[in-house]
Amino acid sequence: MGLRERTRQAVRADIAATAMRLFLERGFDAVTMEQIATEAGISRRSLFRYFATKEDIALGDVAERGARIQELLEARPASEGPWEALRAALQTVVEEGEFTPEWARKTSEMFHGTPSLRARQMEKQSRWHGQLVPDVERRLGVAPGSVTDPRATAIVASALACLDAAVEAWIKDGGARPVEEFYDRAVAAVRG
Amino acid sequence: MGLRERTRQAVRADIAATAMRLFLERGFDAVTMEQIATEAGISRRSLFRYFATKEDIALGDVAERGARIQELLEARPASEGPWEALRAALQTVVEEGEFTPEWARKTSEMFHGTPSLRARQMEKQSRWHGQLVPDVERRLGVAPGSVTDPRATAIVASALACLDAAVEAWIKDGGARPVEEFYDRAVAAVRG
Repeated sequence: MGLRERTRQAVRADIAATAMRLFLERGFDAVTMEQIATEAGISRRSLFRYFATKEDIALGDVAERGARIQELLEARPASEGPWEALRAALQTVVEEGEFTPEWARKTSEMFHGTPSLRARQMEKQSRWHGQLVPDVERRLGVAPGSVTDPRATAIVASALACLDAAVEAWIKDGGARPVEEFYDRAVAAVRG
Repeated sequence: MGLRERTRQAVRADIAATAMRLFLERGFDAVTMEQIATEAGISRRSLFRYFATKEDIALGDVAERGARIQELLEARPASEGPWEALRAALQTVVEEGEFTPEWARKTSEMFHGTPSLRARQMEKQSRWHGQLVPDVERRLGVAPGSVTDPRATAIVASALACLDAAVEAWIKDGGARPVEEFYDRAVAAVRG
């Protein structure tokens, strides 16, 4: 990746972090693109070169997290089975994100309470599946894109379902215990 | 359920079956409410007493199938574990539906190709989870609505993920083998 692209990504990440902070403080609908530009210290015109809409900013995060999980998963040793490799990749994403239950709860409420975000978030998140399936196919020894073999898709979807269930329970629990504990409990129930 | 309500449900099911046939033959967008009324042998005015929009007709099916799975799941013996009971309930729904891969493929294409249906279908289908979780909580001996316990949610979501993966593979396979075979293969991979 060249300097230009690295700079672009850093600016995008910076804008997204600023915007998310505003969304969570004031509510998604109350924040304007103008306010985001001002807080991020750039012109309105520059902002629009990075993001066309507020929804794009909020959803960019979801898409980028999917790409990061994919990258981490593909870097896991080939000797690891799908569940082991997925757990390690998810664990790293959780650590990198430094998520707090408070942040997770507010973000989740924002997505659920904003129809224009909710539908598109579900769609973006469903793309995570497609990003992770090829690696799991390799680990299972399945030929890539074996559309009549449901195994890789089922494992990826189940692992992400365990993650969703774990995050939800962790938020409700208030953060006294780490999210990994809830994830492991969910996976043990599914596989046990 | 009284006679009046039973009659109403029978009429609804009849309208829905007629409409789905037209949608699949002509494409969702090409079919009008007028055509549905004519084919179902009722007045336009009567049709609107049952369904406000074409989307409602197409999605009613999804919601009703969720309610049926719940009913079947709750009727399974208490001695059965969650996976065993879920499999039995899903199997009965599959048998009752007499789905063909051709029908499933066309329906799936219709939902994916129609934005107004796609988002709402994902939302309706995500309601299936809430309909099935209470029964699985009982089977696990978890207090109802234990929001900090991720297990029941994770199991239900994983089973439905296996079903989705199985149906997709079964469609691609062209129906030479029963959908149950794909489901069992998906579950074995997830749990194995």
